[in-house]
Amino acid sequence: MSAPLRLGIAGLGTVGIGVVKIMQNHADLLAMRAGRPVTITAVSARDQMKNRDADISAYAWVDDPVDLATRDDVDVYVELIGGDNGPARASIEAALRAGKDVITANKALLAMHGHQLAEMAEETGRLIRFEAAVAGGIPVIKTLTESLAGNAITRVMGVMNGTCNYILTRMESAGLPYEDVFEEARKLGYLEADPTLDVGGIDASHKLAILASIGFGTRVSFEGVEIEGIERVSIDDIRRARDMGYRIKLLGIAQITARGLEQRMSPCLVPADSPLGQLEGGTNMVVLEGDSVGQIVLRGAGAGEGPTASAVLSDIVEIARGVRLPVFGQPAASLRTPTSARTAVPAAYYLRLSLLDKPGALAKVASVLGDAGISIHRMRQYDHEDGPAPVLIVTHKTTPEAIDHAIEILPRTGVIAAEPVELRIEEV
Amino acid sequence: MSAPLRLGIAGLGTVGIGVVKIMQNHADLLAMRAGRPVTITAVSARDQMKNRDADISAYAWVDDPVDLATRDDVDVYVELIGGDNGPARASIEAALRAGKDVITANKALLAMHGHQLAEMAEETGRLIRFEAAVAGGIPVIKTLTESLAGNAITRVMGVMNGTCNYILTRMESAGLPYEDVFEEARKLGYLEADPTLDVGGIDASHKLAILASIGFGTRVSFEGVEIEGIERVSIDDIRRARDMGYRIKLLGIAQITARGLEQRMSPCLVPADSPLGQLEGGTNMVVLEGDSVGQIVLRGAGAGEGPTASAVLSDIVEIARGVRLPVFGQPAASLRTPTSARTAVPAAYYLRLSLLDKPGALAKVASVLGDAGISIHRMRQYDHEDGPAPVLIVTHKTTPEAIDHAIEILPRTGVIAAEPVELRIEEV
Repeated sequence: MSAPLRLGIAGLGTVGIGVVKIMQNHADLLAMRAGRPVTITAVSARDQMKNRDADISAYAWVDDPVDLATRDDVDVYVELIGGDNGPARASIEAALRAGKDVITANKALLAMHGHQLAEMAEETGRLIRFEAAVAGGIPVIKTLTESLAGNAITRVMGVMNGTCNYILTRMESAGLPYEDVFEEARKLGYLEADPTLDVGGIDASHKLAILASIGFGTRVSFEGVEIEGIERVSIDDIRRARDMGYRIKLLGIAQITARGLEQRMSPCLVPADSPLGQLEGGTNMVVLEGDSVGQIVLRGAGAGEGPTASAVLSDIVEIARGVRLPVFGQPAASLRTPTSARTAVPAAYYLRLSLLDKPGALAKVASVLGDAGISIHRMRQYDHEDGPAPVLIVTHKTTPEAIDHAIEILPRTGVIAAEPVELRIEEV
Repeated sequence: MSAPLRLGIAGLGTVGIGVVKIMQNHADLLAMRAGRPVTITAVSARDQMKNRDADISAYAWVDDPVDLATRDDVDVYVELIGGDNGPARASIEAALRAGKDVITANKALLAMHGHQLAEMAEETGRLIRFEAAVAGGIPVIKTLTESLAGNAITRVMGVMNGTCNYILTRMESAGLPYEDVFEEARKLGYLEADPTLDVGGIDASHKLAILASIGFGTRVSFEGVEIEGIERVSIDDIRRARDMGYRIKLLGIAQITARGLEQRMSPCLVPADSPLGQLEGGTNMVVLEGDSVGQIVLRGAGAGEGPTASAVLSDIVEIARGVRLPVFGQPAASLRTPTSARTAVPAAYYLRLSLLDKPGALAKVASVLGDAGISIHRMRQYDHEDGPAPVLIVTHKTTPEAIDHAIEILPRTGVIAAEPVELRIEEV
């Protein structure tokens, strides 16, 4: 059996401790599968004295992750600190320069600086693996990089932030408004320190940008993602959408069109009986489409100690087995710089209008939509005692431009009591 | 860029031609991802003159696959002939002995002779990769072997024969009996030359045995699979199951229990609203469960030119990239010989009885079940004009032994008009 592969692990939060536990519990199994022993030499975290759910006394303690990353007795540096800069980035760069392979779960860092890190990895002849960065335990990086290597990827999409999906499904099941469920989620510890990363769609967009890079052979372009979070999703819309046979999900979609690379993260309606529509709680789902394979759907836990640590172990065993792949699946220099395009692919839309009780109100709305070239597929007007009447419209397929135009014109009709709500309906 | 990887492809049916087409259409993309050109040097099939959907004139033609497999200008032998013996086996063995890596889609061969082939591959220092052997385009071999390498696998299950799933869903949607849909499927070319391979559950069992070996680190044991096909599934049961909220699927399940390795392929009831329950037509679904990752669900096309060729390309690019893994994920000598055990895990069961119109008939049935330790969760007796009354029973969880015992005793009550039907209900 070959020499042991020696790891240095920085960051002993949920995921780091999860990795330590698997390494301790499954040492023999891992050695068998990897073809060599895999050991932890040293660890680093902010507080050595913190009470942890695993015994780390056998490992050298290092205060500074940069020192850990460059130790002579470390072959692979495992970065589980997080953050798109600071010690995470500094220690990864130090590790590469010191000739270490790198494993990270850091989606923000890869989305912001992934291309520069990939170039550095190639210069130094080292690896960066990051299965845990996207969708927790779901093997989406490996599937896209390796299993679909014979395909021109045509579309990548998914629900990739478990916290948002928890909030949306909990709003529906408990009938609670966004603010209440947001507070619940905060108390349960489901939210990042900066909750905007979750509910603002940023974390999920980091993941989408990484998948788009691998799938389409383009430089990772987080700044090219059109992002809208779930903050404006109301319990009203969740209920109305349900009435019409849909559920609302924070859905990311990336595809290459004639106009360029479209990457969008936004609350969308999906058919309630579709796999994405049925996704409950913190579960993630990623849909990959290729010209030969058709559609592949992957579902699993998108976060949590076990699933995320399982993904880190996938990278550890891969490196121990001697597998060496380019960071984004092909040489960094061959990744094209994408032209970012706003979404132009036509779709059906859901519109919720608040209609004043005036004669001809509905006719005026219909006329604005018609003038914008939007035809109506289904419409429902709900009972109203006093005040404005809620009107729901599901359009036939139309362009985002047409919808934007209609939304701009509608208030000028004088029959609309509140800002119209529009949500895209995705066929999945 | 390194030297080209040179393939010899034997078998130019649907999958073989699919591979040729991808290689021709995506040569640059493949070279970029693989880090080197990938080329076809020679091909072999039964009939050189056959009209094919791809131009193969640039490749050397070889009549005998053994000759193809041992050519000096072939680095990797791609076996797409099929069959658990004969030219497929002979040519793969010849390829290994001649120092060639092997890619195959041949589930029957791997299920029957996989261990011996793995030993031969290790002796000769070569690879056998077979992503296309299980569930077409779904990356289940890679996920199990690599992505879940940090997990003790606890259960593997799936719907892995698209033809059976097509027949079952078509029976339901068209309201047709098994025989009629079987004829349809035959005319559509969905059935193997020997249809028993499909409808008898054998093909799906080959796949299950392969997955069990990788997942549990045991020698592949096809003979240890309890197999029941879909031939006895009636349109009646499909309808009744639907009434009770279930759908019938040909489901394979493998798990290690204290009694040994349980591998079972049989028609089962699954909740109609579960991911497995919603699987339509030829789509496959594989569910993998590990102690850290929890449950991973993979869905996609289980057969067809594009999806299966996509899986073969995954292996081709993997070998071109220099990835070298043991056949079943760990050294052949370390694979344990499993003790095969009949399924003993308790489950709920669906029973359909045909009850004679006699006083106390239902009481007699209930008493037999009670004596066998089986408690009833739900029961429905249907209208009957003349003759026996259909009675449906969903039991609480019980053992297969208890059910077998009850089924044996029931006819002795004198109130049963036909052989009882029992189907296991799986929680998925």
